[in-house]
Amino acid sequence: MYEYNDLLQMVENRISSTGHRTAPEGLFEPVDHIMAGKGKRIRPVLLLMACDMFGGSVEQALDPALAVEIFHNSTLVHDDIMDNALIRRSKPTVHSAFGTNTAINAGDVMIINSFKYFLDVPAEQLSPLVRVFNRAATVIMEGQCRDMDFEERADITEEEYLLMIEQKTAVLLAASLQMGALLGNASAEDQQKIFAFGRNLGIAFQVKDDWLDAFGDPKKVGKKTGGDIARNKKTLLQITAKRDASPSQLAEMERLMSQPDEDVRIAGMLDIFGQLDIRKKILDRIIGFYDDAIHNLNSVRLDDARKQPLLQMAEEVNAREY
Amino acid sequence: MYEYNDLLQMVENRISSTGHRTAPEGLFEPVDHIMAGKGKRIRPVLLLMACDMFGGSVEQALDPALAVEIFHNSTLVHDDIMDNALIRRSKPTVHSAFGTNTAINAGDVMIINSFKYFLDVPAEQLSPLVRVFNRAATVIMEGQCRDMDFEERADITEEEYLLMIEQKTAVLLAASLQMGALLGNASAEDQQKIFAFGRNLGIAFQVKDDWLDAFGDPKKVGKKTGGDIARNKKTLLQITAKRDASPSQLAEMERLMSQPDEDVRIAGMLDIFGQLDIRKKILDRIIGFYDDAIHNLNSVRLDDARKQPLLQMAEEVNAREY
Repeated sequence: MYEYNDLLQMVENRISSTGHRTAPEGLFEPVDHIMAGKGKRIRPVLLLMACDMFGGSVEQALDPALAVEIFHNSTLVHDDIMDNALIRRSKPTVHSAFGTNTAINAGDVMIINSFKYFLDVPAEQLSPLVRVFNRAATVIMEGQCRDMDFEERADITEEEYLLMIEQKTAVLLAASLQMGALLGNASAEDQQKIFAFGRNLGIAFQVKDDWLDAFGDPKKVGKKTGGDIARNKKTLLQITAKRDASPSQLAEMERLMSQPDEDVRIAGMLDIFGQLDIRKKILDRIIGFYDDAIHNLNSVRLDDARKQPLLQMAEEVNAREY
Repeated sequence: MYEYNDLLQMVENRISSTGHRTAPEGLFEPVDHIMAGKGKRIRPVLLLMACDMFGGSVEQALDPALAVEIFHNSTLVHDDIMDNALIRRSKPTVHSAFGTNTAINAGDVMIINSFKYFLDVPAEQLSPLVRVFNRAATVIMEGQCRDMDFEERADITEEEYLLMIEQKTAVLLAASLQMGALLGNASAEDQQKIFAFGRNLGIAFQVKDDWLDAFGDPKKVGKKTGGDIARNKKTLLQITAKRDASPSQLAEMERLMSQPDEDVRIAGMLDIFGQLDIRKKILDRIIGFYDDAIHNLNSVRLDDARKQPLLQMAEEVNAREY
């Protein structure tokens, strides 16, 4: 079986060898720009790991893995337009480098292109494979839409927040794993289990991201913490604090959110979080999702040895402090 | 065999019965908004006509026809953002009704969704079918990119212009016909011929559009003519006039293009067009593409009777004065 880093290298090589370089220049330049940014390539690697786990051919799964990575990057291109983000992976975003219209167009061609890389799988796998991908891709757009709605609402529940991050982040991780399992001829039942594993791990991953932004060690995280608090972002931390706050704590939170000094806002909110034990409450939620993920993986009908690479990856995701 | 209007009605019914209405509202409302606009549905009807011509099942081709129409509408949603167009089919464009971010998101989900409607075709047809669609969809994005480039260039050749409209308009018409032929189990050779028919007819159609904008009867066209001239649009008319103009005529054209009074600009440019015989020159080009299209259709290995509906449609497209 392959190690994570072997698979990552295979993905990088496949991306580099991809002929985005069709005419005209105006189209391939922005696509190259985003695809060359060194992302974690987590989705294609998960797809290959799942395929490998079930004994499928990693080489034959490489094009579908590329499809998922291209699609994921298309969502980044369009999300960055919507969020008006200027920098991604230490480089200018596509729309800030090439203009908004070109970025819309480049994202579109990437969505379309991603489907091309499914077409050489065995005929009997094509329809179920694309169905899994397609459902996940649609759900991401729903999550994106939900996220936009949240910006205009103050009353988001924990349930709604978790559904949003499930849709926006966890489902494509889960679908990548399911696609790999499908290509490795896993049973429908095992495909569902590996999907559930990815879904729970993805939610744990995203909530951990929010947690680290407030409680992480700035030296390990690599940036100043408290960014989400400074932007009054509606994370699970903020939602849980609002839910559990007394009327006077709630009033203090409201006051802090319109407080112009960023550092005062961060310090004040962290103080409220401390009073409400948010650090531990959220960590418990993360552990809950992580434990569910491990339970899903354990229930897959394979020898433990075959599950080792995915288990190890899950442990690393869970233990991360950055 | 089916008549055009029967097929159009089948397409309309299929669109109405489509469940865009998945949560959340923010996503299905803009999709419904654009899909409900009464377009000509030319692409899905062409797909069904080609399928019917080769003796395929029109019912089974209905979902792929829907896919093409959804994809086409996604390009309209994103094009309208890029062109900052406010009205389409007498209704507000999606981005002007729902905001740009929602329109980007809605267009994306439509591109993704379109692929869903291919997945129930017989397994052996799926890969070749999606390949034809996918190639056309990619080419449209290239055409869009080329069109954007043209706005910043003054030296566009006839050849470049024709390639742009081929990519932006003709190829999806051609691919729709090829997909219908493929679903009707046409030979690879006949698929190529029907593609070529659609390509030539599509180019003739688009150039005729430009021609009617300058030389059409406003009563028949249903709007004031000269709109392209007023916007200094780089149509085949303008490109041909520039190519054939004497230095003094060229200077006059340049002067007119920066002339603030729209009506003076239109009248002056039509005068130059008259001096250079643009009306007839462009009509000859249109007839050339139309004749090539008919030649392509004639060379398909089927009885003439089976070709009658497509031939009639081509004749109507060619004869149109609006």
